[in-house]
Amino acid sequence: MLKDKDVVFLWSPEKGDTFLLNLEEGAKLDSRLGVINHNDIIGRSYGDGVRTHLGSMFYILRPNVLEFSRRIKRKTQIIFPKEIGMIIVALGVGPGSKVVECGTGSGSLTAALAHFVGDEGKVYTYDRREEFSLLARRNCEKWNVAHRVEFKVKDIAEGFDERDADALFLDVPTPWDYLRQAKEALSPGSRLGILVPTTNQIEKTLEGLNDHGYVDIQVMELFLRYYKTNAKRIRPEDIMVGHTGYLIFASTVRDIT
Amino acid sequence: MLKDKDVVFLWSPEKGDTFLLNLEEGAKLDSRLGVINHNDIIGRSYGDGVRTHLGSMFYILRPNVLEFSRRIKRKTQIIFPKEIGMIIVALGVGPGSKVVECGTGSGSLTAALAHFVGDEGKVYTYDRREEFSLLARRNCEKWNVAHRVEFKVKDIAEGFDERDADALFLDVPTPWDYLRQAKEALSPGSRLGILVPTTNQIEKTLEGLNDHGYVDIQVMELFLRYYKTNAKRIRPEDIMVGHTGYLIFASTVRDIT
Amino acid sequence: MLKDKDVVFLWSPEKGDTFLLNLEEGAKLDSRLGVINHNDIIGRSYGDGVRTHLGSMFYILRPNVLEFSRRIKRKTQIIFPKEIGMIIVALGVGPGSKVVECGTGSGSLTAALAHFVGDEGKVYTYDRREEFSLLARRNCEKWNVAHRVEFKVKDIAEGFDERDADALFLDVPTPWDYLRQAKEALSPGSRLGILVPTTNQIEKTLEGLNDHGYVDIQVMELFLRYYKTNAKRIRPEDIMVGHTGYLIFASTVRDIT
Amino acid sequence: MLKDKDVVFLWSPEKGDTFLLNLEEGAKLDSRLGVINHNDIIGRSYGDGVRTHLGSMFYILRPNVLEFSRRIKRKTQIIFPKEIGMIIVALGVGPGSKVVECGTGSGSLTAALAHFVGDEGKVYTYDRREEFSLLARRNCEKWNVAHRVEFKVKDIAEGFDERDADALFLDVPTPWDYLRQAKEALSPGSRLGILVPTTNQIEKTLEGLNDHGYVDIQVMELFLRYYKTNAKRIRPEDIMVGHTGYLIFASTVRDIT
Repeated sequence: MLKDKDVVFLWSPEKGDTFLLNLEEGAKLDSRLGVINHNDIIGRSYGDGVRTHLGSMFYILRPNVLEFSRRIKRKTQIIFPKEIGMIIVALGVGPGSKVVECGTGSGSLTAALAHFVGDEGKVYTYDRREEFSLLARRNCEKWNVAHRVEFKVKDIAEGFDERDADALFLDVPTPWDYLRQAKEALSPGSRLGILVPTTNQIEKTLEGLNDHGYVDIQVMELFLRYYKTNAKRIRPEDIMVGHTGYLIFASTVRDIT
Repeated sequence: MLKDKDVVFLWSPEKGDTFLLNLEEGAKLDSRLGVINHNDIIGRSYGDGVRTHLGSMFYILRPNVLEFSRRIKRKTQIIFPKEIGMIIVALGVGPGSKVVECGTGSGSLTAALAHFVGDEGKVYTYDRREEFSLLARRNCEKWNVAHRVEFKVKDIAEGFDERDADALFLDVPTPWDYLRQAKEALSPGSRLGILVPTTNQIEKTLEGLNDHGYVDIQVMELFLRYYKTNAKRIRPEDIMVGHTGYLIFASTVRDIT
Repeated sequence: MLKDKDVVFLWSPEKGDTFLLNLEEGAKLDSRLGVINHNDIIGRSYGDGVRTHLGSMFYILRPNVLEFSRRIKRKTQIIFPKEIGMIIVALGVGPGSKVVECGTGSGSLTAALAHFVGDEGKVYTYDRREEFSLLARRNCEKWNVAHRVEFKVKDIAEGFDERDADALFLDVPTPWDYLRQAKEALSPGSRLGILVPTTNQIEKTLEGLNDHGYVDIQVMELFLRYYKTNAKRIRPEDIMVGHTGYLIFASTVRDIT
Repeated sequence: MLKDKDVVFLWSPEKGDTFLLNLEEGAKLDSRLGVINHNDIIGRSYGDGVRTHLGSMFYILRPNVLEFSRRIKRKTQIIFPKEIGMIIVALGVGPGSKVVECGTGSGSLTAALAHFVGDEGKVYTYDRREEFSLLARRNCEKWNVAHRVEFKVKDIAEGFDERDADALFLDVPTPWDYLRQAKEALSPGSRLGILVPTTNQIEKTLEGLNDHGYVDIQVMELFLRYYKTNAKRIRPEDIMVGHTGYLIFASTVRDIT
C-alpha cells in the first residue's frame, strides 16, 4: 500500500505523459490532463489507476532506474540510462560494492550506483561545487538511496580518501589529470570507468592510461534507438540521440617493483 | 588472497588474450603463450601478474559481469552485455529483487540477474530442456551465484509458479503466447522485458501486449561500437555486431473490474 | 559570371545560415542578418562574398545535389541525400540512363536523377496527384533540369508507358502492388529500387519480389551522423536522424519459358 | 546482345554467389558451382540465365557502380559504395564535371567518378606510386571508363596541374599538407572532399581547413546496415562494417584582398 515518501511512476494511456513522483501528503501534481492529488494515490497500490480532476486516467507504475535517471532534476549534463547500464555491467558493480565517483553532477549515476550496491555497499561521490553535491543528495533522497552515499565537496587533485575501491568512475573534463589518484583509490585488478564527450579527450585519456600502467583498456560508444509501437507500422523514431559520450574502461594492476 | 574456486580474469599485455577462470588446485590452463598453473595464481592477489611456462605475462584481474556473460560456456544464442545492462536498468532489478526468467538458455542473463539481486534476492528461471538448465546451473556455479537461482525444467504454457515478481524476462521464440502467464506472475505495476531477434516478432508481441492490457510499451535496439585504443590513431573497429535483438518493455496494471 | 536564373548557395561565416537561391533580377532575399539584393550577386562569381544591407557577409558557393535535395520546397516527405547517394550508386544511374520513378512527391529524387542522367538521359516520373507533379516540376526548373524529366499524372496500376528502362524507383505506400508493372517497364537484368518506412512494408515487399521472380534482393538502411567542426572538441552532433526509410533493391530477369 | 569486353554481373539463386566479369572470347570462369564459359554468355542478353558445366544456374545482370566498387581488384584500402554515393552527391559531381582526385589507390572512386562525369567530363587522378596508377587504370578499363581519366604519377606537394576543377577529393594520409594545392586547383566556390580513417586526422584537417580559409565545413560518417531477406524473419545481418572512414567536405572562396 502506497504511503507518504514512496516513489511512483505515473503513465497516461491517453497521451503517454509520464511523471516520477515522491508522494507527499496533501501535495498536488499539475498536468495538461488535469490535477492529481497525491492523497488519491496514497493508500492505493502499484498497478492501480488514478484520475485527474478532469477525469483523465494515469496508471501508478513502479519506478525504475531508467526512468529515474532520465527524469532527474538536473543542472548539468547527466549520464544516460544506456551508459548507466553498461557502466554497471563493465565495472562489475553489484550488491556490496564500494564505488567511488567524481564528479557528482546532478547525481544521475550516483543514484543508480547507490541503487545497485544495496545496503551493504557504499558510494563515495566527489564534486568541487557544493551546489551540485546538494542537488545530487536531494535527488538520491527522492530515490531513497541517499543513506548509501557519502557526498564529498572536494578537489580530487588532492587524492581520494578511499582505498581498495571495487570500482571508480570519472566524469570530469580532464580525467587524465586524476589517473594516479584513481589508481591509489582502486583495489588492484579493479576497473576504472571514464566518460568523455570528445575524441580529443579520448586521445589524452589513452595516453594517460598507458603512462600510468593501466591494462585491458577498452573504448566504446553506445547507440540507443527507440521504435514506434504501432504493430502495423513498425519503424524507428525519426529522431534519435546521436551522441552522449565515449566510455573508456581500464584495469589497475600492482606496480612491479 | 586468491584461493580455490575463486574467479579470475586473465589478460595478456602481449597479445590482449584473455581468460575467465575458476581456480582449481592443480589445474592447468593452456594458452598460445604457454601453460599457466592455477597453483601459481592461488595465494596471489588481484592485480598481480603470473607467467606462463614460456615466460609470457598475464595480469590477474577482477572478473566482471560483462566479461562473464561474453565468455560463458554456451549451447545457445546468449544475451549480450549491452542488452544485459539495459535490461537490468529498465526492469529496475537490484538488491533484493525477485526476478522470473524464461528461457534459461546458457544462463548468461540468469547469472547476471543473480549477480544484481544479491543474497536477499532470487531468480527463478525456466527452460523446457533439461540440458540447458544444467548448463546454466554450472555457469552460475562458476560465477558463485547459483545459490540465488531456482532452475526449473518446465513448460511455461502451464504458467509460472511465482506471484508478485518484481520483474520478468522472456527470451523465447513466441513471447506473445505467454503474456497472460507473465501478467499473473508479475506484481501489478511491474515490468516485463522481452528480447526478440526479428521485426515480425515485434509485430506479434506488440499486438499481444495490447490485447493483454500492458501499458507504457517501449521498443528499442542498442548498438555497441568498440574503438581501437591507439591514442595516435583513434578510430572505431572495422567490424561491429550489427544486430543481436530488439528489446521490448511493458508494465502490467490491475484489470479494472 | 553569375546571371539571372543561375542557382547559388549562400553561406554565412557568422552564423552558418544558408540559402539556396535562383537568381532573379531585382529580387531581394530576407535573412536574419539583413537583406541581400539579387542584383548584388548577378555579375559576381562563385566564391565571391556579398554583404547584406546590415553589413553581414555571405559567401556565394556552387550549389550541389545534397543541398538542393535537403532544401527543396516540399509538401511531402522527401528522400534524403544519404539515400539519394546510395540509390544512384545501387541503381547504376549515370549519364544517358533512362530512369522511371513513382511517386514524384516533391521531386527531391526526381531532380537528383535528372542531374545524374545528363542531357542524354531521361527521367519519367509518375504521380496520381497533379499538385505534386506541378510542385516537382517547379523544383526541377529551379535546378535547371526539368527538360530532362517527363512529369506524368497517372495511376501506375495501369502500368508504366516505358519499356526497357535502365532503372526504376518506387516510393509508394504499397510497392508490392506494382511489381508486375515495374518488371514490364524495366530492361531485363536491371534494377528496381524501393523505399519503405516500416518493417511491415519490408515483409510484404519481399514476399512480392519473390512471387514476381526478382533476384539478388538486398535490404539495407543508412545512418548519417554529422560531427561538430571545432577541431579541439571533436564529437558527433547531439541529435541525429534516427530513421528515414529502408532501401530495397532487386534485379529483374527474363521469365524462363 | 552481349559481346566481347562487355561487363556482366552474375548472380546465383542457389547460393547467392556473385561475379563481376569482363567478357572475353574463349575465357572460362571457375566457381564452386562449376565452370562457366564466357562464350555461353556472349550472344545472350542481360536478364538471361547461363548454366555451369554442373548445371547450376547464374543470372546475367547489369553491373552497377555499387558492385563494381565493392569487387574491384585491390592492393589498397578502397572507398566503399556508401561513401561513394555521398561523395558524388556532396561534391555535386555529374555529367560534364571536371574532378581531381588524389590518391588513386586501386581506383574504386576513380572509376565511380569517371562513370558519373560521362563522356563530357574528365577525372584527373594522382598517385605517387606507379603500380597503383596502373592497377587503377586496368580497373577503369574493365569498367570501360578509362578514356575519361588522366592517370598521373606525381607528388601533389608540387601542386596539381589543373585549375578551375569543379570538385576535388583527397584520400591521403595527411590531407592537411595539401590544402593550399587543392584550393589552387579548385574553381572558387567549389567543394573539396576528404576521407580520413581516424579522429586525430579530423582534428588536423579541421585546423588546416580553417587556416586556409575554407568555408561551410562538414564532418560526417555513414553506417550501412544490411538486412536478411527472409520475409518471415526480417532482421539485420549479425555483423556489419563498423567503420570505413570520416568524410569531410568544405568549400573554397576567393581570398579577399
